[in-house]
Amino acid sequence: MTFPSVTTKLVFLLGYPLGHSVSPAMHNHVFNTLSMDYCYLPVEVTPENLGPVFTGLSKINTGGFNVTIPHKIAILEYLDEIDPLAEKIGAVNTICLNNGKTKGYNTDGKGFVQSLEKKGNLAIQGKNIFILGCGGAVRAIAMTLAFRGARHIYICNRTQSKAEQLAGEINEKIAECTTAVEQVKSSIAKYLETCDVLINGTQLGMHPHTDTSPIDGSLLFSHLVVADIVYNPLKTRLLRDAEQRGCITVDGLGMLVYQGAAAFSLWTGKTPLISEMKTIAYDLVK
Amino acid sequence: MTFPSVTTKLVFLLGYPLGHSVSPAMHNHVFNTLSMDYCYLPVEVTPENLGPVFTGLSKINTGGFNVTIPHKIAILEYLDEIDPLAEKIGAVNTICLNNGKTKGYNTDGKGFVQSLEKKGNLAIQGKNIFILGCGGAVRAIAMTLAFRGARHIYICNRTQSKAEQLAGEINEKIAECTTAVEQVKSSIAKYLETCDVLINGTQLGMHPHTDTSPIDGSLLFSHLVVADIVYNPLKTRLLRDAEQRGCITVDGLGMLVYQGAAAFSLWTGKTPLISEMKTIAYDLVK
Repeated sequence: MTFPSVTTKLVFLLGYPLGHSVSPAMHNHVFNTLSMDYCYLPVEVTPENLGPVFTGLSKINTGGFNVTIPHKIAILEYLDEIDPLAEKIGAVNTICLNNGKTKGYNTDGKGFVQSLEKKGNLAIQGKNIFILGCGGAVRAIAMTLAFRGARHIYICNRTQSKAEQLAGEINEKIAECTTAVEQVKSSIAKYLETCDVLINGTQLGMHPHTDTSPIDGSLLFSHLVVADIVYNPLKTRLLRDAEQRGCITVDGLGMLVYQGAAAFSLWTGKTPLISEMKTIAYDLVK
Repeated sequence: MTFPSVTTKLVFLLGYPLGHSVSPAMHNHVFNTLSMDYCYLPVEVTPENLGPVFTGLSKINTGGFNVTIPHKIAILEYLDEIDPLAEKIGAVNTICLNNGKTKGYNTDGKGFVQSLEKKGNLAIQGKNIFILGCGGAVRAIAMTLAFRGARHIYICNRTQSKAEQLAGEINEKIAECTTAVEQVKSSIAKYLETCDVLINGTQLGMHPHTDTSPIDGSLLFSHLVVADIVYNPLKTRLLRDAEQRGCITVDGLGMLVYQGAAAFSLWTGKTPLISEMKTIAYDLVK
């Protein structure tokens, strides 16, 4: 990589805390390989400084932003424009700058769906999908699945009222296709049997709790494609159980790669090198 | 150079327009060679955006700033603290951040004086100095020379009232040692004969006007050390004339190297590699 110069377009990742993110290596590698005069910079911003920092960085030679926890919702108030799907999700992870105007997008859901369709070897349209959890990631994923024409979405969360609220929002804003499911074994079994895909959208199974699974292994029907948003470890307890049952499995790192690829296209208008991004991401995580 | 990470301290150069500056290569090379986790980034900022950009950049993992034309004076109002000499000069080119507080310095004058003392093989204290011009650079240089104990400073400018104003300021703020000189050959000759050093602080002689000199060659007494702030070309018409007369000459690039070295120490608390900075700067300019 050459030194950033006055012509270098800067792309900032805003979050707090950031720790070791895969995105800088992934994006800088692609910028470098394609000889693009861009530099991806991870920058920690505390919540009280989000406004002034975002305003300041929007007024220099910035090519775009990624936004991550805890700023994905708070950033909305500073944007000039918001993509319709991102507005429905209520969270933004990618921002483009055009003639000084900022526009926010959400590529998290899109990234997950692309990863699921590629690795799971299926098309979302017309499929029944069962989701565990109800946090920010599930919100983006479920909204995007509904938007892409999933037949039915079941959301199962420890606090059922939250699942009901999200289901209601999706039914109202996108399509009448979502149901909240009570977190008891009989209910889960009943709906899951009719589904094509199971998604873990909780943090359960993440390092160091690598022996934890969000669902009893006996419920994993062999016809299911089982996807996890956790990517540390890559092969979670859930995915190991699912493999044993004969399911097709989709790890969580693909979501990260594809959300990054979608963001890259939005910032630059160019097609990224997805296979190279995958190589970098998987090398860093394994 | 490795990719900037979340721990990388950013040092921004703020100016408009910036064009090709020597500073990024110089500082990034030293950061790299000393394995310091820093990255120097040149950033164009228009005058109306200086406030929000500076405010925003002060709230991330920033290790310091350089400030150049046209912001050296305007930046003062955004600083928490100003070094006494920089306050007298009324301009700041270097900013440090400590616990979120910004402090401004001026290393332009210091850089020039260090370069002059090294290459001119002299000590400023007790010397008589003749300066041509009265812009921002001369202001920093003359104030610093007075601060460092020059015996007498003569300032000669096309618009004499400006020279008189600066001389008055120096006499009042630092020491009673400065006189404005009328820009006529007889006056120049009279005072210059008593001087140890002649400094060109105008832009005369800069590319593409490489045959222009700010002073008639016949006035260059052989006992003078002749220094130029112009460094493009390195050997200006003035310095060529001075060499022919047998004078010791000091080119303008040394000022840039030493002001950068002083800024580096202020940001990092470390001693920079001056000889390496010189090599880079001279390689880029020649």
